[in-house]
Amino acid sequence: MIESRLKKVLESMENQNLAQLIISDPSAIFYLTGKWIHPGERMLVLYLNLNGTHKLFINELFPVYEDLGVEKIWFTDIQDGVELLANHVDKENIIGIDKNWPARFLIRLMELKGGSAFVNGSKIIDKIRMCKDEKEQDLMREASKLNDKGMEKLIALISNKYDEKKMGQMLLNIYEELGADGFSFDPIVAYGANASDPHHSPDRSTLKEGDSIIIDIGCMKNSYCSDMTRTVFYKTASEKAKEIYNIVLEANKKAIAVVKPGIRFCDIDAAARNHIEAAGYGKYFTHRTGHAIGIEVHDFGDVSSINTDIVAPGMCFSIEPGIYLTGEVGVRIEDLVLVTEDGCEVLNQYDKELRIIE
Amino acid sequence: MIESRLKKVLESMENQNLAQLIISDPSAIFYLTGKWIHPGERMLVLYLNLNGTHKLFINELFPVYEDLGVEKIWFTDIQDGVELLANHVDKENIIGIDKNWPARFLIRLMELKGGSAFVNGSKIIDKIRMCKDEKEQDLMREASKLNDKGMEKLIALISNKYDEKKMGQMLLNIYEELGADGFSFDPIVAYGANASDPHHSPDRSTLKEGDSIIIDIGCMKNSYCSDMTRTVFYKTASEKAKEIYNIVLEANKKAIAVVKPGIRFCDIDAAARNHIEAAGYGKYFTHRTGHAIGIEVHDFGDVSSINTDIVAPGMCFSIEPGIYLTGEVGVRIEDLVLVTEDGCEVLNQYDKELRIIE
Repeated sequence: MIESRLKKVLESMENQNLAQLIISDPSAIFYLTGKWIHPGERMLVLYLNLNGTHKLFINELFPVYEDLGVEKIWFTDIQDGVELLANHVDKENIIGIDKNWPARFLIRLMELKGGSAFVNGSKIIDKIRMCKDEKEQDLMREASKLNDKGMEKLIALISNKYDEKKMGQMLLNIYEELGADGFSFDPIVAYGANASDPHHSPDRSTLKEGDSIIIDIGCMKNSYCSDMTRTVFYKTASEKAKEIYNIVLEANKKAIAVVKPGIRFCDIDAAARNHIEAAGYGKYFTHRTGHAIGIEVHDFGDVSSINTDIVAPGMCFSIEPGIYLTGEVGVRIEDLVLVTEDGCEVLNQYDKELRIIE
Repeated sequence: MIESRLKKVLESMENQNLAQLIISDPSAIFYLTGKWIHPGERMLVLYLNLNGTHKLFINELFPVYEDLGVEKIWFTDIQDGVELLANHVDKENIIGIDKNWPARFLIRLMELKGGSAFVNGSKIIDKIRMCKDEKEQDLMREASKLNDKGMEKLIALISNKYDEKKMGQMLLNIYEELGADGFSFDPIVAYGANASDPHHSPDRSTLKEGDSIIIDIGCMKNSYCSDMTRTVFYKTASEKAKEIYNIVLEANKKAIAVVKPGIRFCDIDAAARNHIEAAGYGKYFTHRTGHAIGIEVHDFGDVSSINTDIVAPGMCFSIEPGIYLTGEVGVRIEDLVLVTEDGCEVLNQYDKELRIIE
């Protein structure tokens, strides 16, 4: 276990009067142990208890030979892992549950009365993960540097020869050459009308003159994620497209400009949203302004109008306003920011002024 | 909604006295609607009620314009989707929960008292999905045919020039050329001692003489999965490796030979396991004999010693015994079988006799 991180988690449990916590998310287990274990549909639980009886419940299919500083309780496919867990927990006490724990395990633990009450306990570790330590900050910088380079190389390849899917495949090779560890999420490359769907899946569409091109990409490096979006235009851009682009760009810059410790996430969201609303496109900015990022591309925490949490040094999140005119055009511009003592460091340096690819 | 499938689900709910069911798994929603929606960390729920008030709760971020034959209840990132859902459910009645529903939603629904009791309701749809209809059977055949070709092309590339990761990357290109829709799971290519870990993640290891090479790969085609494993040897194979290979091969064949309607899954598992145990390697066959497959590479249902469910026509699952001598050698041989009226059809034709690659 990484003692400095475990200590923070136990302190937070104590402050919140939660004596026991089930952590099941592989990324949270990696955060605390330094070890990735991907159990698929099998149960994997790191059980923490303030009395120090921490245990890792793990299926024998996932052989972890090294000492992780926590006792391992092994089980097989023909054993009921939840029953083993239920025999270890303090049934008379409230138990914190991982936000992502599948219902099949939670319902079974409830049947076995494995706790006096079941609460979502993930905020304890999620809030600690939000503030990256120095080592993590360096890893975030490194991943985004690679992503800047990846974006540059991918934009250089834009051509009507390559459909959206092909661009994604070429990006994987680019990341490989750059020494990144693959995608942090399936890349979004969206041409023209496709760009008006914020979560478009790349398909066989090819470019035509006047298309906006949304490129929303990220790589992993040493288990940390990058995530950046740029929108460029192919051959030409309509006046309306240019207008939208500049509104989104200004919204991106305005939000970044207000990021500093002490501000609420909703105020950052408002800085982007108010600008887009004032320009008359409020209803076309259909999502939150950003999300936290770290070991997961969507870490806990978001930059949204309902998040009144306070920003603190070491936090890392995206600023990604967009405007989507359905069936017509879409623009999104996204950078990652890392909160410093008195403002923020923008982790993406790739140019974001309006650009038309010839 | 695909009426024939919906009808079966509602009939099963009625038989089990479950009036309402939450389906959240994207694959189950695809099964019932024909539409893939990938909501990431956002809530997506298809709510079914025997009184016919089915609803799809969906975040506005995932624009689904077509009529899916079910009323859509839209919400945004600044709304509590679970609260909307709780306002629709029958709070006085038991509610079935999707086995994969994340605890953060289930605990919230419980706080809102969105049901008189919460049970794992997934078996209702999972058991229906186990028996593939004719259209699905054709899709399973097609995916496995592509996988046979992929295996052939990949094995032809084996060389000490390519590390495990590179083999995986080349496989993606092979699938692409064959017209498959990408991986059904991250491929496992494991050389030598790495092959003794059944879930080894490909790394930068390269081949050396005498290595066993486990190749466990699958592609998607039209939303259906393939999955096959072959083990070959590089340049030479020790007598022990050959012995193990032939034991595993015989176990694979023995299990396939007993597959027919009416047999229990545990009897199929026993057919493979007893053979390996009799040969003295029982404790090195560390996993179940197989898993169901369909829209998901691991569909509900497995071929294990504790599964007393009965096999029926249309079911599709893997037969994949293995022997793993830690740090030394591993062998696994996997085929998919499709249960017919009086036996089974083996979906993989790629040769599985012992082979040494020169």
